[in-house]
Amino acid sequence: MKQSKFVLKIQREIPKDADSKNAAFLVAGGYIDKTMAGVYSYLPLGYLVLKKIEQIIREEMATIGGQEILMPSLAPKDNWQKTGRWDDLDVLYKFKISDGKEIALNPTHEEIITPLVKSMILSYKDLPLYLYQIQNKFRNEVRVKSGLLRGREFIMKDLYSFHKNEGDLNNYYDQVKEAYKKIFKRSGIGEQTILTYASGGSFSKYSHEFQTLSESGEDTIYLCPGCQIAVNKEIIGEIKKCPNCQSVELQEKKAIEVGNIFKLMTKYSQAFDLSFSDEDGKKKTVIMGCYGLGIGRLMATIVEVFAEDKKIVWPKEIAPFYVHLISLGQNEFAEKVYQKILKEKISILFDDRDLRPGEKFFDADFIGSPIRLIVSEKSIKSGGLEVNFQAGGEPEVLTVDRAIDLIKKNLAD
Amino acid sequence: MKQSKFVLKIQREIPKDADSKNAAFLVAGGYIDKTMAGVYSYLPLGYLVLKKIEQIIREEMATIGGQEILMPSLAPKDNWQKTGRWDDLDVLYKFKISDGKEIALNPTHEEIITPLVKSMILSYKDLPLYLYQIQNKFRNEVRVKSGLLRGREFIMKDLYSFHKNEGDLNNYYDQVKEAYKKIFKRSGIGEQTILTYASGGSFSKYSHEFQTLSESGEDTIYLCPGCQIAVNKEIIGEIKKCPNCQSVELQEKKAIEVGNIFKLMTKYSQAFDLSFSDEDGKKKTVIMGCYGLGIGRLMATIVEVFAEDKKIVWPKEIAPFYVHLISLGQNEFAEKVYQKILKEKISILFDDRDLRPGEKFFDADFIGSPIRLIVSEKSIKSGGLEVNFQAGGEPEVLTVDRAIDLIKKNLAD
Repeated sequence: MKQSKFVLKIQREIPKDADSKNAAFLVAGGYIDKTMAGVYSYLPLGYLVLKKIEQIIREEMATIGGQEILMPSLAPKDNWQKTGRWDDLDVLYKFKISDGKEIALNPTHEEIITPLVKSMILSYKDLPLYLYQIQNKFRNEVRVKSGLLRGREFIMKDLYSFHKNEGDLNNYYDQVKEAYKKIFKRSGIGEQTILTYASGGSFSKYSHEFQTLSESGEDTIYLCPGCQIAVNKEIIGEIKKCPNCQSVELQEKKAIEVGNIFKLMTKYSQAFDLSFSDEDGKKKTVIMGCYGLGIGRLMATIVEVFAEDKKIVWPKEIAPFYVHLISLGQNEFAEKVYQKILKEKISILFDDRDLRPGEKFFDADFIGSPIRLIVSEKSIKSGGLEVNFQAGGEPEVLTVDRAIDLIKKNLAD
Repeated sequence: MKQSKFVLKIQREIPKDADSKNAAFLVAGGYIDKTMAGVYSYLPLGYLVLKKIEQIIREEMATIGGQEILMPSLAPKDNWQKTGRWDDLDVLYKFKISDGKEIALNPTHEEIITPLVKSMILSYKDLPLYLYQIQNKFRNEVRVKSGLLRGREFIMKDLYSFHKNEGDLNNYYDQVKEAYKKIFKRSGIGEQTILTYASGGSFSKYSHEFQTLSESGEDTIYLCPGCQIAVNKEIIGEIKKCPNCQSVELQEKKAIEVGNIFKLMTKYSQAFDLSFSDEDGKKKTVIMGCYGLGIGRLMATIVEVFAEDKKIVWPKEIAPFYVHLISLGQNEFAEKVYQKILKEKISILFDDRDLRPGEKFFDADFIGSPIRLIVSEKSIKSGGLEVNFQAGGEPEVLTVDRAIDLIKKNLAD
């Protein structure tokens, strides 16, 4: 993509009314735009990041047998009454429609998917079943804050699994755990993201959260440095100890919950009478699990972890453009470089604009490509283009072909 | 994809409570599931069709410079009051949120995108600008009907263009017209879809609709068979004549509106004071166009046009699977065929299930792949597999390699 053709408005100033680091950076960088408190649009640059995250998630869902569907945002009162959450869930948006009926805007989809799969699950042969979606959720929050971390409307991946017995659920639950670890690793926050024991509600002993260490996190967790496992403050109890090694040397940390996995057992299948006939011919209740992951929230978390003031280096698989080619008054040579890299199908943004170097670098710091290539009179005289790995290391001047080899090697690592 | 692993529930009976042919077929075929009147989920098979349509649209939007964004569903009352539509638009869902503020669920996004682009458009150098999204819309319809054709919640592509003068808008408007023709052609309904003159509102003489001829259409159009152009009944006037050749020999037809393009001129830019400084230094109001296309509606229209009772042949680029390989008790040979076709990166569903031929063919008729391959004892004895082009022609028995050549040739046509 040529930058002269790419819609991009990077602000020189960080907005003063931003409620968080991620909102400040993402609004200033032209990634998102605020429509109202807790409600944002994704602009072209932010949309690219969103799609990169979605791609990682889709690939990892496919490896654990997840099939994609798309459920609606509207649901009738009846669905939410069956589980008692019409009255109990205070973040549920509720209103009347033209025909006088009451409806809700779904903040999660257990109340939709459980009746939905009734026609799909008749016997044990139809189990297990794994369905997920990437879709908008709504929460009627009294106070919203933290940019994309806690909004009134937000994009989530939610996976639901259906099983014939608890053993099968436990087995799949562990597979999802591994898939989530891969997702966070590929998103660049693997090291900072800690598997955390959390409340299992009334049906399970525990659920698990994936908590990314960050000072801006709303959650407090107790981390066992040896096991790299944590316990959420909400269930820690009086004696703080690691559930794995029983160590009591835990560290109190602030963290952002980026994902959670939960054994629902029969809570929703009972409410909707979701059952199957087992091999022994008996009717049994389906066992369920659910697995959430906030996509905008993941994007915001990456910013909280990696952005510094007016600069970010996006993790490789998340960057809106992997390579940023900046021409300093040398568009003819740079155009050749651009065409060569395009041919290799490497994601690249080419700053072909007629601007001063300082303005170009200011914008480039906000765009945050892991690799920056600079074409200048000086670089051409030295035999090619300057290659900068933004994560660190000394810049090098290389020929185009050598630069491409290096980029491909870095991509494959 | 192996059919034994693909979640698919095809019903033996067409649902009796379906309000339309498309809903009856799509529910029975396991494409969609009804959550409430006018609100549907897309199941794995329907989701694949949705993604195929979106892919065509994204490619054609890219060719006319459209850049993708994603706007929210919620918007504050203030945005809708500025244009007078808070009171005037009776399909607007309106409700109060926790902090007491009133908000709307967006049925269209002029009220969101116009203030959004204010920070992007300062001078004539920032124009033209083309932004689109694929996103959920909401309409508080009193009565919903016709399955995916008119719902309370539905997926649309909406493109908005911003120009410095009317000439530039007119030029782009014609480009969009051509892009829409390509989209409908690639979706298989090019021949049935007629460019139709419709009301331009208070700001333009005309708008244009794309109307697909179908007895189940809600619209009445007057078609000039010579020009393949039509006029919507709502603006036809007393003397019915073709706006192109002035012929009065028009045919009255029922049709489904699958897209519309509209010159908004300054209606919304004035309401939000969206202006730019022109080359002469003067402040001028931005000229706008908007271009809608219902994605679920397009899917439903294809069904209305092509499905017959319990059978459909999806157009090539829309089919959830391009090739359907059916094994009649010969999974070993069929598996080899499947692997060879997979290697060619051709979209294929392999019916490896242990079912009777009649059941397999019943399901295959609902899945509607353009090419059906049958592997049976008989076909193997005759030297390979039976190739059926569902659109017509005699089945042939071919070797795997010959069959692949034929499939690739058909794909490229």
